[in-house]
Amino acid sequence: VFFMPIVLASEASAGGPQILAAVLLSLLVIYVASKAGGEIGVRIGLPAVLGELVAGVLVGVSVLGLLVFPGEGVSTSGVMEFIRWTAGMNPDQAQQVFQVQGEVLNVLSELGVIILLFEVGLESDLRALFKVGPQAATVAVVGVTVPFALGAGALLLLFKVPLIAAVFAGAALTATSIGITARVLSDLNRLNSTEGQIIVGAAILDDILGIIILAVVVGLADRGEVSIGRIAYVTVAAGGFLIGAIFIGRLTAPFFLWLVKRLRTRGDLLISSLVFAFALALVANVIGSEAILGAFAAGAVLAETDKGEDLKLQLKPVADVFIPIFFVAVGAKTNLGVLNPAIEANREGLIIASVLVIIAILGKVVAGYAAFGGGINRLAVGVGMIPRGEVGLVFAGVGASSGVLSPALDAALIVMVIITTFIAPPLLRIVFQREIPSGKREL
Amino acid sequence: VFFMPIVLASEASAGGPQILAAVLLSLLVIYVASKAGGEIGVRIGLPAVLGELVAGVLVGVSVLGLLVFPGEGVSTSGVMEFIRWTAGMNPDQAQQVFQVQGEVLNVLSELGVIILLFEVGLESDLRALFKVGPQAATVAVVGVTVPFALGAGALLLLFKVPLIAAVFAGAALTATSIGITARVLSDLNRLNSTEGQIIVGAAILDDILGIIILAVVVGLADRGEVSIGRIAYVTVAAGGFLIGAIFIGRLTAPFFLWLVKRLRTRGDLLISSLVFAFALALVANVIGSEAILGAFAAGAVLAETDKGEDLKLQLKPVADVFIPIFFVAVGAKTNLGVLNPAIEANREGLIIASVLVIIAILGKVVAGYAAFGGGINRLAVGVGMIPRGEVGLVFAGVGASSGVLSPALDAALIVMVIITTFIAPPLLRIVFQREIPSGKREL
Repeated sequence: VFFMPIVLASEASAGGPQILAAVLLSLLVIYVASKAGGEIGVRIGLPAVLGELVAGVLVGVSVLGLLVFPGEGVSTSGVMEFIRWTAGMNPDQAQQVFQVQGEVLNVLSELGVIILLFEVGLESDLRALFKVGPQAATVAVVGVTVPFALGAGALLLLFKVPLIAAVFAGAALTATSIGITARVLSDLNRLNSTEGQIIVGAAILDDILGIIILAVVVGLADRGEVSIGRIAYVTVAAGGFLIGAIFIGRLTAPFFLWLVKRLRTRGDLLISSLVFAFALALVANVIGSEAILGAFAAGAVLAETDKGEDLKLQLKPVADVFIPIFFVAVGAKTNLGVLNPAIEANREGLIIASVLVIIAILGKVVAGYAAFGGGINRLAVGVGMIPRGEVGLVFAGVGASSGVLSPALDAALIVMVIITTFIAPPLLRIVFQREIPSGKREL
Repeated sequence: VFFMPIVLASEASAGGPQILAAVLLSLLVIYVASKAGGEIGVRIGLPAVLGELVAGVLVGVSVLGLLVFPGEGVSTSGVMEFIRWTAGMNPDQAQQVFQVQGEVLNVLSELGVIILLFEVGLESDLRALFKVGPQAATVAVVGVTVPFALGAGALLLLFKVPLIAAVFAGAALTATSIGITARVLSDLNRLNSTEGQIIVGAAILDDILGIIILAVVVGLADRGEVSIGRIAYVTVAAGGFLIGAIFIGRLTAPFFLWLVKRLRTRGDLLISSLVFAFALALVANVIGSEAILGAFAAGAVLAETDKGEDLKLQLKPVADVFIPIFFVAVGAKTNLGVLNPAIEANREGLIIASVLVIIAILGKVVAGYAAFGGGINRLAVGVGMIPRGEVGLVFAGVGASSGVLSPALDAALIVMVIITTFIAPPLLRIVFQREIPSGKREL
């Protein structure tokens, strides 16, 4: 914040103003891209989030290179070049500033998805979620087993991929990006529809199943074997956490409200609620589950209290500030280079990818039709589960770093993630539009 | 801090969950401390911000050590020990996570003061500020020259300090922490009073003068001489920027409103306004001025538009989330160790400090009496200028790193900053309370 008129090369706090400048410029790029992308998306009839993702791709590593995250094989970005040019840093200093500002943006993006899931929890109705629980569980289980079996089978039989790699890739096909799905539903005003609640419930169960599957396949990849104790721990941690958090949250909510009503300083409700959400996110993170599950549980519990509506209003501006960072970052990190068929090495991956994409889409659509009960738009449920988003990228990233996946298979997984992520928002809009109009305003 | 790149051995994203966990836990500590401190402060009749600062000291490097920033000579913190324990990191990994989470918190704290000054700008009335401009300018100039002359003179004559060191220490006495002052005024509901506007105006001018003075003394300290060109550039950059930003901002505000009214996606007004504020903050930072001046100018310009009131409402929750990070961080970074008279080495510093504290307080009170015009609480204006806060710490930090200041004199400056910062909020409350009640609710 405080500018020091000279660059103090030897001083401990040197680099501070440059890091701040890089983060500010990155936030400017993010906000301008997300607004421009979202507004164009809405105007051509697509959900705002797809515009934000595409805008992220445009400013990211694939196209303009303005916003690049360290560790993508590129060691600078448009933002960093500008800061380096204005601050007159040497290459070593610039490299350090690049690393640090990247980590800062990563944390801001993670806070973005935590706040997104907190907001989704606040919008959710636990009773309604419990009511659609059996359907959601069926959709989740079918949506995990079908893509896994078809994917691993196809890779083994058609492409003669080694067993462990096929299992790993099959696992990557099971993911659902709750962040992208929930945001699309929210853009379409369908978060509270029966279909929306089934999708959210199934996506949360998918997240829990995904954590368990990741533990299994990483164990397989690392040691060629599976530790039953580890799997049991991960299962209990992921599943038990959500149930425990909701149960304990409901017990402690009255005390929480009692406390909030006694606070007299600014931000009484909002900060107390964020403490609640961050605490559950931290517990989830620390026990080896996912921070977003904790944030969702916190939101769902607070939604049941009589402060739920107030909190939603107060959280909205905070969500508006943090959430676009997440979506633009997901887009910016997407490397479209793997899609270029002019590069010889991409071709095998593209052929595998086209098979995986079909399996990825069909597997989730089939899962949607597993939702029993009358009056449900089953196709919409299935389509809502299609985007793999950041969860799929985690599988691809872990697979690449563990050395299990061949470069072609790794590229194929990334292509599968890109296509499922970008195809789902417009598809979801189409399948919802075929319904009788619900009277709600649609964006 | 420039530290060794965080890229861990093989995997670029390793450490990510630990960094997120450390930031989440730090935010929990910050929010719990700020709420607890603020609520206790309000209940015992002090401004909330003083409670937040004291709570920051309690959780910071001086007392509990839960929240420690890298570069304070301590290489871990309570937060880090917890994360290290739960994640089972080795010392090298823990050190890297400690560095990165510290940088993330530094940036969040800097965003906090940027948003604080944006909010102060939004609360300000440019016409009223221009109207009190002559008074504010008088207060600023007297409040800079009197502490400087008395401070440097006393150090030269009483303590036989070398000339350059005396000039440097005198310069540190000239600062005013606009962040702390504005927040106290806001806590007391006096930001829009004539006194409040004079204080804000004078504090902003002080900031500009401070940037110029720092350039002069750093030039003196580094080379024993002053570069006229550099001083001229810094003067134009700091003073010209604010005038230019307000002028250009007023010209472009209609276009900005035209654009905002055409946006259809969430966060239309808020995100567009933050883009405006961050852009001006970035320009200020890049041209070598202070980011907070840009944020203030953006707020002051937007306050004049017909969206000003809407924006204030939407910014409030965002401000509630970011601003406490700044105040708790200022407290957490305050090292009370220099106040311990049991340590031999502190005693000389404490004697010098007691003289500097008296000069620091008297100099600003005298400046308050320089505010001409009738019906002004001149004592309140002077007292409002007392806190040196983070601006004073920058002088002490630069002095310490440049080697100009002896350890005793450096410690004395830190003591002066601590005492002026912590004494001003309760004093300001007292001098405002002696007035005839204004009918406004006071916290």
